[in-house]
Amino acid sequence: MAKALNLGMIGYGFMGRAHTNGYKRVADFFPDIPFKPVLKAACARDAEKIKAFADQWGYESIETDWRKLLERKDIDAVDICVPNNLHKEISIAAAKAGKMILCEKPLAMNVAEGEEMCQAVEKAKVANTVWYNYRRIPAVTFAKKLIDEGRLGRIFHYRANFLQDWTISAELPQGGAGLWRLDAAAAGSGVTGDLLAHCIDTALWLNGGIADVSAMTEVFVKERKHALTGKTEKVTIDDACSFLCHFQNGSLGLFESTRYARGHKALYTFEINGEKGSLKWDLHDLHRLEIFEYSNEGATRGWKSVHITDGDHPYMGKWWVPGLAIGYEHSFVHQVADFLYSLGSGEPCHPTFRDALETQKVCDAVISSAKDHSWKKV
Amino acid sequence: MAKALNLGMIGYGFMGRAHTNGYKRVADFFPDIPFKPVLKAACARDAEKIKAFADQWGYESIETDWRKLLERKDIDAVDICVPNNLHKEISIAAAKAGKMILCEKPLAMNVAEGEEMCQAVEKAKVANTVWYNYRRIPAVTFAKKLIDEGRLGRIFHYRANFLQDWTISAELPQGGAGLWRLDAAAAGSGVTGDLLAHCIDTALWLNGGIADVSAMTEVFVKERKHALTGKTEKVTIDDACSFLCHFQNGSLGLFESTRYARGHKALYTFEINGEKGSLKWDLHDLHRLEIFEYSNEGATRGWKSVHITDGDHPYMGKWWVPGLAIGYEHSFVHQVADFLYSLGSGEPCHPTFRDALETQKVCDAVISSAKDHSWKKV
Amino acid sequence: MAKALNLGMIGYGFMGRAHTNGYKRVADFFPDIPFKPVLKAACARDAEKIKAFADQWGYESIETDWRKLLERKDIDAVDICVPNNLHKEISIAAAKAGKMILCEKPLAMNVAEGEEMCQAVEKAKVANTVWYNYRRIPAVTFAKKLIDEGRLGRIFHYRANFLQDWTISAELPQGGAGLWRLDAAAAGSGVTGDLLAHCIDTALWLNGGIADVSAMTEVFVKERKHALTGKTEKVTIDDACSFLCHFQNGSLGLFESTRYARGHKALYTFEINGEKGSLKWDLHDLHRLEIFEYSNEGATRGWKSVHITDGDHPYMGKWWVPGLAIGYEHSFVHQVADFLYSLGSGEPCHPTFRDALETQKVCDAVISSAKDHSWKKV
Amino acid sequence: MAKALNLGMIGYGFMGRAHTNGYKRVADFFPDIPFKPVLKAACARDAEKIKAFADQWGYESIETDWRKLLERKDIDAVDICVPNNLHKEISIAAAKAGKMILCEKPLAMNVAEGEEMCQAVEKAKVANTVWYNYRRIPAVTFAKKLIDEGRLGRIFHYRANFLQDWTISAELPQGGAGLWRLDAAAAGSGVTGDLLAHCIDTALWLNGGIADVSAMTEVFVKERKHALTGKTEKVTIDDACSFLCHFQNGSLGLFESTRYARGHKALYTFEINGEKGSLKWDLHDLHRLEIFEYSNEGATRGWKSVHITDGDHPYMGKWWVPGLAIGYEHSFVHQVADFLYSLGSGEPCHPTFRDALETQKVCDAVISSAKDHSWKKV
Repeated sequence: MAKALNLGMIGYGFMGRAHTNGYKRVADFFPDIPFKPVLKAACARDAEKIKAFADQWGYESIETDWRKLLERKDIDAVDICVPNNLHKEISIAAAKAGKMILCEKPLAMNVAEGEEMCQAVEKAKVANTVWYNYRRIPAVTFAKKLIDEGRLGRIFHYRANFLQDWTISAELPQGGAGLWRLDAAAAGSGVTGDLLAHCIDTALWLNGGIADVSAMTEVFVKERKHALTGKTEKVTIDDACSFLCHFQNGSLGLFESTRYARGHKALYTFEINGEKGSLKWDLHDLHRLEIFEYSNEGATRGWKSVHITDGDHPYMGKWWVPGLAIGYEHSFVHQVADFLYSLGSGEPCHPTFRDALETQKVCDAVISSAKDHSWKKV
Repeated sequence: MAKALNLGMIGYGFMGRAHTNGYKRVADFFPDIPFKPVLKAACARDAEKIKAFADQWGYESIETDWRKLLERKDIDAVDICVPNNLHKEISIAAAKAGKMILCEKPLAMNVAEGEEMCQAVEKAKVANTVWYNYRRIPAVTFAKKLIDEGRLGRIFHYRANFLQDWTISAELPQGGAGLWRLDAAAAGSGVTGDLLAHCIDTALWLNGGIADVSAMTEVFVKERKHALTGKTEKVTIDDACSFLCHFQNGSLGLFESTRYARGHKALYTFEINGEKGSLKWDLHDLHRLEIFEYSNEGATRGWKSVHITDGDHPYMGKWWVPGLAIGYEHSFVHQVADFLYSLGSGEPCHPTFRDALETQKVCDAVISSAKDHSWKKV
Repeated sequence: MAKALNLGMIGYGFMGRAHTNGYKRVADFFPDIPFKPVLKAACARDAEKIKAFADQWGYESIETDWRKLLERKDIDAVDICVPNNLHKEISIAAAKAGKMILCEKPLAMNVAEGEEMCQAVEKAKVANTVWYNYRRIPAVTFAKKLIDEGRLGRIFHYRANFLQDWTISAELPQGGAGLWRLDAAAAGSGVTGDLLAHCIDTALWLNGGIADVSAMTEVFVKERKHALTGKTEKVTIDDACSFLCHFQNGSLGLFESTRYARGHKALYTFEINGEKGSLKWDLHDLHRLEIFEYSNEGATRGWKSVHITDGDHPYMGKWWVPGLAIGYEHSFVHQVADFLYSLGSGEPCHPTFRDALETQKVCDAVISSAKDHSWKKV
Repeated sequence: MAKALNLGMIGYGFMGRAHTNGYKRVADFFPDIPFKPVLKAACARDAEKIKAFADQWGYESIETDWRKLLERKDIDAVDICVPNNLHKEISIAAAKAGKMILCEKPLAMNVAEGEEMCQAVEKAKVANTVWYNYRRIPAVTFAKKLIDEGRLGRIFHYRANFLQDWTISAELPQGGAGLWRLDAAAAGSGVTGDLLAHCIDTALWLNGGIADVSAMTEVFVKERKHALTGKTEKVTIDDACSFLCHFQNGSLGLFESTRYARGHKALYTFEINGEKGSLKWDLHDLHRLEIFEYSNEGATRGWKSVHITDGDHPYMGKWWVPGLAIGYEHSFVHQVADFLYSLGSGEPCHPTFRDALETQKVCDAVISSAKDHSWKKV
């Protein structure tokens, strides 16, 4: 019988919804989890909005000050879904209060912050994880499995990009509740922390550490009206960021992210080329994995499009029947399930804060390289 | 504030899970529904199994006799997820008991049964719907919208197929709990009622009535061990079925279904060609709609792959952000939502039993045509 | 050293160009052919037009009467590229004159004509072939090889279609030099002989004989201005034709052809499903073959897209390097090469007239079935 | 009436064949060309091999010393299809001899050589062109047209890669007739000059000049047996090369090339993103252009796959009918046609030597950047 895990959610935006959906669905599809999430409290400064959110999703209570939430004895774990500039303070306080922490990515504004956060959770010995949810898209998890089995052999190349087009219009303002991702004060960086961080987390997981980087960033629309001040202000985030890198295993990496690639909504793709095979994946068709196998050479060699919907694919035995796809939101359900299993086993749930710090290091090196126009060690 | 709608679920198989998931999720994503489902009771003959199902999914109570369920005053609606040969009896009894009915497809074993069922629900004036869920895949709903707006003009062709490969092995038994779909006594027909019925429902909805058909069916594996008797028995269902038809609007139709198309898991596709444009859809990539527009003629004409994940696509404003796909299960959430909205508005929720009878008529004509080797009026 | 093979071309239209290109290129890429085509004479009633054609393509002389051409001693072989209603007369006369014959498809207006033609060439013992060129698209030839090796096992399904959209406009006239394919007097039938004949030839080659058919045809635009008479006349061809069939090997067939499928230019596709694997091909991407192999089952199973451009793919060793595609016209070069090799070996070059008569038989049965609304034996 | 243009071909390898095919076919399909190529002489040091080549392709005579060829009065133009280290010497001598020059890409071993060559042809006022043939794949030419019409608006991003996998095996030797591309002494560089040069030429043509670059190169197999010496020697070419760049129009570029991308034969792809639209192309499906148009926004927006086979697509009016693809080799036919037209008009045939020097400048900057690990101005 699953024990209750009392959750306090901080934030109510897009990620607040996605995580909550994960908590609510996990027991239906993963009935063997040792803990069952209970939506104890939702927290945000705006009482009216957090009340509406709590009502819609079924949180038992609300708080308007996260410090109050951390004081509550009936909260086992907190989920941090607020802008990046608040991650550090809340995380450290939560760790001190002995709460488990599920923190939205990126971990922090920079490596220095992230290091403090890691030390806090490690000192407090609280379970912690960061929501790099794409690891748990079944096709991506399956890619990891194939790589770990040595199916690709020595790796030569890794490339990834995350392309969007929603900020092309110069009329779009920056800042405020909906658009804090365009404001460096709240977000730390632009596409680097928002999009590339996802690409980097997956890459580190699949292909190991990155040794050095050469990056460039660009701001295409230099000034935008700020939603909070009402004034036209300089845009401080990066609209686009690309970088070259060497992985520690000797393979070459190429990464790109932008919000100015007309026609792409959320096209996160990666490809990895090894001596014995290659893999490709694309978020726009997230239920497929493209596989090329060298052992399959000869006149019938080719790229296979594998429809990742069978019972023997990661997580898929829990869902429907072959041929019937699941979607984006399921990656969060899977991360909740794995977090709960990890509480049972006592093993960490990756990516932990410490794992996510590695991604932060690459992001910092990227930003620094772009600023200095030179290669940087990670 | 949404009123409670007390549900009694009959069955606990694949569809029992899919419908239940729909009931549990609808309020989170459609907070404006006038009624909110309450999982009051789950019912099946096997007490142990229905208990386990009820516990996993959160049904408040169980019943082991559907008649008992129908007697309960605290049940507003029943959901029939049992083999086809039980649809009629339960539906008619439920209608007499004044329960709303959500019946799994196909409606009945044949037209005669279906007609009785329609009369029962119409006489009892109970809300009713049949789970032809594919109408509510957003890409399919969007196709309907485009057609209704006249974007395709006069229709010339409609083609659909539903291809699977899971019964190729002669070792697979027929009958029993998991494989009743291979037993004509329980299922009525093979792929015709199971798969083609879906294709036909969508076709009638998108392209109007079918006038006549010429069909062929085939049984590739003639005998299989029966799971209930343990004996090798003649296979009585159709393994494959194809038919030609004329639609009432003068267009030509071509339909095919099989469980012997190696390499296809659940490949339901349709294409419709009109004077001004064409549309294509494919369940294996259910979040895309392929569109060809004649108004878009000239050197840049071509098929567009539209990623149906934007706020202005049907149902999608309720989910995530552009580029992030939903999956198969969401079609059931949408049907639940529409059923609940229809209770508020007093309008029927299509397809009703009467709508589904039209599909049954085509299925019967198809089976009859295949038997007689001649064209049949529907 | 290759001997000369003196050719007389009858006709100068689309096919006249395609065949001539084949004759001119074959020796460059197939230097080991035992005979080398010499463009001796081009023939058509319109002296000016055939002169222009001969000049452009390098024919040494012209004729304006095919009977004259057949009388010439310096002509070894004739290529018949005129409307279908002239195939019989010219072929029989050519056979009597001892000329080899390369005849454009379909063989004849009907089976009776075709039978006469077969008897004529067989009696005269002249080399003969019919230009069902799609057999020699490398991907299609490769499909044949895989099937013959037993890679698909027992066959369950074969489906093919040939979809175009160029006659949708009611303003398009029928008949005359450019549009004789819309005039039954010249073409015999509409899409059945023009497009389905291709599908049928490939199917018979890949999957063996067809036993019986149930067909429907349709004329969507009932009257069109006739280019020769200037009057609006009844359209006598079939605009669309679909049929069901049984193959002699027990598999089921489904065929469709139309010129009213908006958005498709020349979409000839086929798919074949067997117990051990499946294949798919599409003329719009003619350099690819989609392969599903059952032996490749397990979590990495999927459809492979094989880029048919390697040296170990049929014919491809003669062209460029892996990854570099050839096109439509090369199928004619390959047929010329195979015809010339066959002259060296003394073996027939398939499809011979007799082979093509089998396709004619299916076409006749299809037309007859559509007329009578009943199944017809082939 | 077309005048003769007497050609001398120097070389007989892959490119010798591809260019010759262009010369032989151009008049059949472009009958209005003002000059008609005559295959006057083929030249190479190996008398036996060049004799066989001349016989197969129909060259009237052979030479074994290119200096002799240049002395011949009956030669109007020479085509240079020999390893890169010979381009300069032959070109300058040919210019001095007053011959027109069609030189295989890349122009030279480096910018210094290229500059000399430009000065030579400009001083001699001889017609000159470099075989960057991909400009004349119809889909690529069409992309140029759309960009020049302003259909994409302000450009934000350009990315291209050229991925192959044929040198992964460490057993493959370097150097010699077939593998001189793996020997820096003959080729100058590895993938940079062989593959990236194509990507760069197309990019400069479509998107204008490149301002600066940051590159990395890698040698994955450090030593290979040399085919000429028989000894294992250090590999001196680059196996892989990637670079970031800024275009002069303010857009960002990302380029990658490798011969170690398992599963890719010759995957040259580019994508360009502008404010109003985007384009994508892929050599593996060279007859398609993917187009996204912002003007086409709304619920039906999406990427269109345009099948570049219509009469209103560049060059395609000369070939077959809609839906029927041409292939790789046709790009050479088109370049021959354009070269001949340019002789008639007196306009240069782009890319001229001077145009190709711009690509050389980028290549040199890339190699230099990779060596120094720093950004380089072009």
